Amino acid sequence: MRIALDAMGGDYAPSEIIKGALEALRLVTHKIILVGDKEIISQELDRLGASNRERILVKHAPEVIRMEDQPLIALRRKKRSSIRVGLELVKSGAAQVFVSAGNTGAVMLGAKMILGSLEGISRPAIAVTLPSKKDPFVLIDAGANVDSKPEHILEFAIMGQIYVRAILGKENPRIGLLSIGEEDLKGNGLTRNAFMLLKSVPQVNFIGNVEGKEFFEGKADVVVCDGFVGNLALKISESTAAFISHLLKGVFTKGLFSKLGYLMVKGPLTELRQQVDYRAFGGAPLLGVKGTCIICHGSSNFEAIANAIKVAVEMAEKRINEKIESHIQAVREVVGTGKNIWRQLREKFYQLRGIGEEDSGREE
Amino acid sequence: MRIALDAMGGDYAPSEIIKGALEALRLVTHKIILVGDKEIISQELDRLGASNRERILVKHAPEVIRMEDQPLIALRRKKRSSIRVGLELVKSGAAQVFVSAGNTGAVMLGAKMILGSLEGISRPAIAVTLPSKKDPFVLIDAGANVDSKPEHILEFAIMGQIYVRAILGKENPRIGLLSIGEEDLKGNGLTRNAFMLLKSVPQVNFIGNVEGKEFFEGKADVVVCDGFVGNLALKISESTAAFISHLLKGVFTKGLFSKLGYLMVKGPLTELRQQVDYRAFGGAPLLGVKGTCIICHGSSNFEAIANAIKVAVEMAEKRINEKIESHIQAVREVVGTGKNIWRQLREKFYQLRGIGEEDSGREE
Repeated sequence: MRIALDAMGGDYAPSEIIKGALEALRLVTHKIILVGDKEIISQELDRLGASNRERILVKHAPEVIRMEDQPLIALRRKKRSSIRVGLELVKSGAAQVFVSAGNTGAVMLGAKMILGSLEGISRPAIAVTLPSKKDPFVLIDAGANVDSKPEHILEFAIMGQIYVRAILGKENPRIGLLSIGEEDLKGNGLTRNAFMLLKSVPQVNFIGNVEGKEFFEGKADVVVCDGFVGNLALKISESTAAFISHLLKGVFTKGLFSKLGYLMVKGPLTELRQQVDYRAFGGAPLLGVKGTCIICHGSSNFEAIANAIKVAVEMAEKRINEKIESHIQAVREVVGTGKNIWRQLREKFYQLRGIGEEDSGREE
Repeated sequence: MRIALDAMGGDYAPSEIIKGALEALRLVTHKIILVGDKEIISQELDRLGASNRERILVKHAPEVIRMEDQPLIALRRKKRSSIRVGLELVKSGAAQVFVSAGNTGAVMLGAKMILGSLEGISRPAIAVTLPSKKDPFVLIDAGANVDSKPEHILEFAIMGQIYVRAILGKENPRIGLLSIGEEDLKGNGLTRNAFMLLKSVPQVNFIGNVEGKEFFEGKADVVVCDGFVGNLALKISESTAAFISHLLKGVFTKGLFSKLGYLMVKGPLTELRQQVDYRAFGGAPLLGVKGTCIICHGSSNFEAIANAIKVAVEMAEKRINEKIESHIQAVREVVGTGKNIWRQLREKFYQLRGIGEEDSGREE
């Protein structure tokens, strides 16, 4: 197996990325292809004193898609960018895995365009692993799709389920739907229909709605939602954490007493920060595309990159894509592929409960 | 002016609510009508040793809508509930303000049904005041509406602007749109159209998108969004804070050294918690209904209730409703009321920027 690594993508590229590749060589037995400007990569390898270069290959890609570039335009114009070249290595079979900490939108869009979707998947989605009061859980979709339909949410549930089973080792992951009320029929048009659909599929261990206030309670192993909502959920939780850390800093530097107190808890606090750091979870896969594509946070350091490579290899070795395809196939046989399938399901659902739509909790 | 207070609503009702009313008498000069079971209220007033009852009135309402009741059904069946009776006091003019910490859905729905909407407002919305790294800001809609349309987002912006100007004292509040990218055309179908609409209205000081990661940065004074999204944003930030507090507790109780450290920072930490506590901000108004209706957190204590009453009186005194109506009227004259107004605006917008829809950043 070969791993293509975008050497030019990320806030600390190429230095931290290449350092991450060298670190990863100690975790995996495969070859890593550094994709980017060969001169720069070569200099960086020398600078880092990389002695053992047997498992390091370089693929020249002279262009860089920058963080601020508009994804679609950049992908079209920069045909020799590290993102395009890296993805094409996977497309051609020269590599099985692509890892990048570069422009998220461009990696996502590029992977969908160049690699294509798995059989039965119409919307590849980003799966992010997050900590909770209990075990870690996976949020999917964390931002690959907006304006999703109920059947896309079902796809996210199935992909998330297979991913969590393989990577987090949960045999029968609990699937929850991110919504604004605990009752079955609470939510918006999308979540109410998605609820019915998820409820009707025996292959999905659906436990109902997960409310915002339960987000970090560890109620579900997989939390599914539209990508607009998922991205906001993820980023708002990051923003809240940053805000609290900012406030704490104020508290800890207030007086001599507080400063002393801070010195005493500094160690455990740092430990805590590492424990909940997304970096430890090894990047977020774009599930549902052919091949394996991992998107890392722009601010990834070498450890984050090495971890992402490790998880990517695990995903490929555990044949997650094959499992997704066969699972989707099995679900399609139950649910069908009709366009209005969730409407029919909804009617059936209301009948079962013996209530009219009128009393269904809609408030508008 | 008279304030109708739901004595039976909230996790700590009636005790904390009635205590809150007594506290409020020291902040405002008006009369407070306690709405609920008159026996229970009378006993509670005795128990609290309320000596000066000149400005305390009681309106008997023998039924209670419970937290777990389904709002629509409960409102229909419990005609003599404190929520219905309280809102009818405002409807009839016997009171000008209704404050409740009871079933949020029932208060919201009841207010819309019984009080009705202001002229020009089709979707009353909840405005929640939140802290940020800079000044507090208002999130609107925090959960009154799902599946909003762009013109509803515009209504939220106008209501939020008037509210912030009156209550937070900002002369020209900056309006931001909660979305998933900073660029103008990022987001989902709703936010892209709402963006155009907000941009086209000279009466709104629109500063563009506010991303999830900027939520607590204090970039805008008013952050507008659909109620499904707003409710999740609010609740996920609460969940994140609870999670971090849970983790910190673990850190602080780890060893003797940490425990000592905790004792040293305990004071400032408590101060901090109070500073960012929603209770200090006095409940959330349902803007856009006739009369003044304030919804308090279920777990409100007496201070939260007293604060809510104070803000409610301020809102009524500052004639926020009149201002909303005249502002909406002025905006309607600019924007028009055509059904496809935001589509037309979008075309105009694209023309102005000289770009085709194709390059507009849509990734689907």
